[in-house]
Amino acid sequence: MRLATLKLNTHSGAGATFAAVGDSAGWVHIDTPNVQTFISHESWRAAGEAALREPTRLAEGSFEFLTPVPQPAKVICCGLNYHDHIVETGREVPEYPTLFAKFADTLTGPADDIAVSLTSRVDWEAELAVVIGREIYQVNISEARAAILGYTVANDISMRDWQQRTLQWFQGKTFDRTTPVGPCIVTADEIDPVDGLDIECRINGKVVQSSNTRELVFDSARLVAYVSSFTRLQPGDIILTGTPGGVALGMENPQYMRNGDTVETFIEGIGGLRNTIRMTPTH
Amino acid sequence: MRLATLKLNTHSGAGATFAAVGDSAGWVHIDTPNVQTFISHESWRAAGEAALREPTRLAEGSFEFLTPVPQPAKVICCGLNYHDHIVETGREVPEYPTLFAKFADTLTGPADDIAVSLTSRVDWEAELAVVIGREIYQVNISEARAAILGYTVANDISMRDWQQRTLQWFQGKTFDRTTPVGPCIVTADEIDPVDGLDIECRINGKVVQSSNTRELVFDSARLVAYVSSFTRLQPGDIILTGTPGGVALGMENPQYMRNGDTVETFIEGIGGLRNTIRMTPTH
Repeated sequence: MRLATLKLNTHSGAGATFAAVGDSAGWVHIDTPNVQTFISHESWRAAGEAALREPTRLAEGSFEFLTPVPQPAKVICCGLNYHDHIVETGREVPEYPTLFAKFADTLTGPADDIAVSLTSRVDWEAELAVVIGREIYQVNISEARAAILGYTVANDISMRDWQQRTLQWFQGKTFDRTTPVGPCIVTADEIDPVDGLDIECRINGKVVQSSNTRELVFDSARLVAYVSSFTRLQPGDIILTGTPGGVALGMENPQYMRNGDTVETFIEGIGGLRNTIRMTPTH
Repeated sequence: MRLATLKLNTHSGAGATFAAVGDSAGWVHIDTPNVQTFISHESWRAAGEAALREPTRLAEGSFEFLTPVPQPAKVICCGLNYHDHIVETGREVPEYPTLFAKFADTLTGPADDIAVSLTSRVDWEAELAVVIGREIYQVNISEARAAILGYTVANDISMRDWQQRTLQWFQGKTFDRTTPVGPCIVTADEIDPVDGLDIECRINGKVVQSSNTRELVFDSARLVAYVSSFTRLQPGDIILTGTPGGVALGMENPQYMRNGDTVETFIEGIGGLRNTIRMTPTH
């Protein structure tokens, strides 16, 4: 099953958001504001399956995709988790995952412009994102796997100038509304990144990152179990699993993104993000 | 004015929490669940002043202090911000603040036991905490100063084994319910850490950290302005300003905390935390 948070494009429904379930035929409206509220009902899966038995689908073009989980309590990111990206940064394959946090405010929609100010080194990081489906704390890998709701696409857009000001990456990773996530969540019964999903990032149409999720050092279930050893995870929490090689930072003469550049992020079997960078004056 | 979130000790009111305003005479009940909900009303200050004109105070011993803001959307911490702590870690005085995040789940009450598992290097970090009073984004230092609700006491208890597993400190700083914050917020019109407040940490009664907030490299208003340049801050958000010298990590033969150790954290003019470490098996 696919899960999305949508917004109607029609004038009458402007601003109203709702959850939707999808299959190869399209999307069906669910009467709740977003995926986060939908999956908080214990019977969401049965309700979603029932909705998909309806023959009608939302008309294409009548809606747009928002970030599926608008207000996750925790957004945790893993760095240095693809063998090829580790090599490009000149590091060794790690014993433990390198983790840092974002805020719900850091997230933005799969087609939103990304407005940034006060930075001149805006870099891309295509990432598989894991969405948690049930509350877990200190679970083993198999329990962690069972707690994964599904997978979506993210781009951990990074302000390298701010990231490299100090030892901690946090400030370069948490500019408001700069991490696109979406367009939908594919549930874990339908897809397994361990089997290998192609992941790609394109800047103005040119492929800059091209890898496969089987290159992940710590796979989704291991990451979820690891994080759960020190903090409780709740439905809707998001874990970004790290980026493959090919970021600007890894280049000899980095070409960072400029005003008007488009960044597209794809993962096989899930879908894609398409965002435009807008360099803006400060508030 | 002092602001606190309290819980009645009596059997009849067990579990009920409420905001309270205080002065040198004691505390007065406010009919709202906590400081966060109280300050969300525009007229909170007038309501607090009116409450303090009542002659009666809550009976001592009839209540206990909880962490003042139970669910901050953002908890941002500054590392390496006291001249003396920077010296003990062998670093240079920085040009930019080193920042990382905690979760609301990381916080605990000013007298709570701190239960930890899976770590053997539990260290202390006495810190001044700043609480935000109004929404701000990309503000200058003077606007940042005006947006500070007040100050409280925190201890950024750190699991040094986890903190040092990777380049990013995050995982050693975000064990659930390990950062005590409280016992109350002293509003910014009554106290200014720039003038110099003694800050102290004691382990089992022995002073291990003793400094003064005038030693801060980046003062509260500068930190708030800096953070606001990349992320919006909301009422109740908390910024921990960093710890002075004297942590176990800085010792030649570090003596980390053990089961049953008490850690006390004091800041002049605000108050103190008193927590006991409980080494526990995993969940």
